[in-house]
Amino acid sequence: MTLSSLSFKLSGLSTAEVEASELLYGELADDIRQVIDIAIRTGVEADRVAAARDLIRQAAQILAEDASSEPAGIQFNAEGRSWNWGNAVVGVRNAIAPPVILQWADDGSVHSEVDLGAAYEGPPGCVHGGVSALLLDHLMGETASAAHTRLIVTGTLTLRYVHPLPLGRIRMQAQITKEDGRKVTVTAHIGPDDDSAPAVEATGLFIVPRWHNEEAVSAEVGSLD
Amino acid sequence: MTLSSLSFKLSGLSTAEVEASELLYGELADDIRQVIDIAIRTGVEADRVAAARDLIRQAAQILAEDASSEPAGIQFNAEGRSWNWGNAVVGVRNAIAPPVILQWADDGSVHSEVDLGAAYEGPPGCVHGGVSALLLDHLMGETASAAHTRLIVTGTLTLRYVHPLPLGRIRMQAQITKEDGRKVTVTAHIGPDDDSAPAVEATGLFIVPRWHNEEAVSAEVGSLD
Repeated sequence: MTLSSLSFKLSGLSTAEVEASELLYGELADDIRQVIDIAIRTGVEADRVAAARDLIRQAAQILAEDASSEPAGIQFNAEGRSWNWGNAVVGVRNAIAPPVILQWADDGSVHSEVDLGAAYEGPPGCVHGGVSALLLDHLMGETASAAHTRLIVTGTLTLRYVHPLPLGRIRMQAQITKEDGRKVTVTAHIGPDDDSAPAVEATGLFIVPRWHNEEAVSAEVGSLD
Repeated sequence: MTLSSLSFKLSGLSTAEVEASELLYGELADDIRQVIDIAIRTGVEADRVAAARDLIRQAAQILAEDASSEPAGIQFNAEGRSWNWGNAVVGVRNAIAPPVILQWADDGSVHSEVDLGAAYEGPPGCVHGGVSALLLDHLMGETASAAHTRLIVTGTLTLRYVHPLPLGRIRMQAQITKEDGRKVTVTAHIGPDDDSAPAVEATGLFIVPRWHNEEAVSAEVGSLD
């Protein structure tokens, strides 16, 4: 499989339509996030589990009445708006995604605070080390894209696990530390949303693919993560 | 926050009760996985979304009738069985987890095949690079635990992204390549479930924590990931 700028789909939706759609289906994803969480913690008896399953299957049938057979992909419109609704980290229609909302600072650094509940557990009461890797990979890729002014792919990613990261509100931050031709180095960390030391420190090497300038792609498309 | 063997909870459940519980709540999680997937792909109108949301919220209310306020953690029983139902990679009660089912070979290597659908997307049609990191981190931690005969924590993890990994059935494998005191080196890769070259290659350094032998913990507890 080869990725290229043709992997991105030009959509006929206006930005206003995109935002209405994000609100509608984003609230659906929020409800599903709640049921994911409670399904881990529930202790109800078998008859109540059966009742809940029946409702969930009915909901799935309704949503399947008109559904694409394809994953969401990355789309963009003529106004320069792009969206990746199914993304595992930031996808507003993907209940697996917390979702992460990125904050871009004037100096090019990117940070985010997000609540991670029972569904993100690894060690008891702590965020799974692989979830930290997942979130950092995405954050760092977006950072390397320099506010979505270029497309990048991940080359290498190195993570140093320093402390356990308790479930709850976390904070993560990334910045570009070096640029050399098509190679962009990003450093980042994730930790509790307080003055604690970082739980995980990361360094990533990101690459601007050779096909970056081959076709006309919206400069807003950004990271391929 | 400090992890120790006290982080693991001794349960009064028999292994038969654990397995009945995994079946009951595992089927619930499977239904939720279906709704996560279809919610990304659906194009139904607002009134149908509202109907689906109503059903999902009803299901959540039923499950909340009796629920713990705590994440699932890692539990074990007097028979040496352990379970981590909320784990983000292997937790059978966690709809975010695919879930991954690990296969242990006689030579100590560990592999797994799993289907990754629309909810694990990053680049268009491809597995999110951070999801590969999440799955590999877990697989490698379990591998370092040497069939759950010792507790380990992740020290460092390095990932090399070689090719895009299409959504669909993937295969991953890990093996211990070096042991030096409390340090265990594991290498791994993930790729399509065919003869293709690996998409991501990984090396990890895992540590047996100093508190490993301090208290009597079931040898079955295994990786802290």
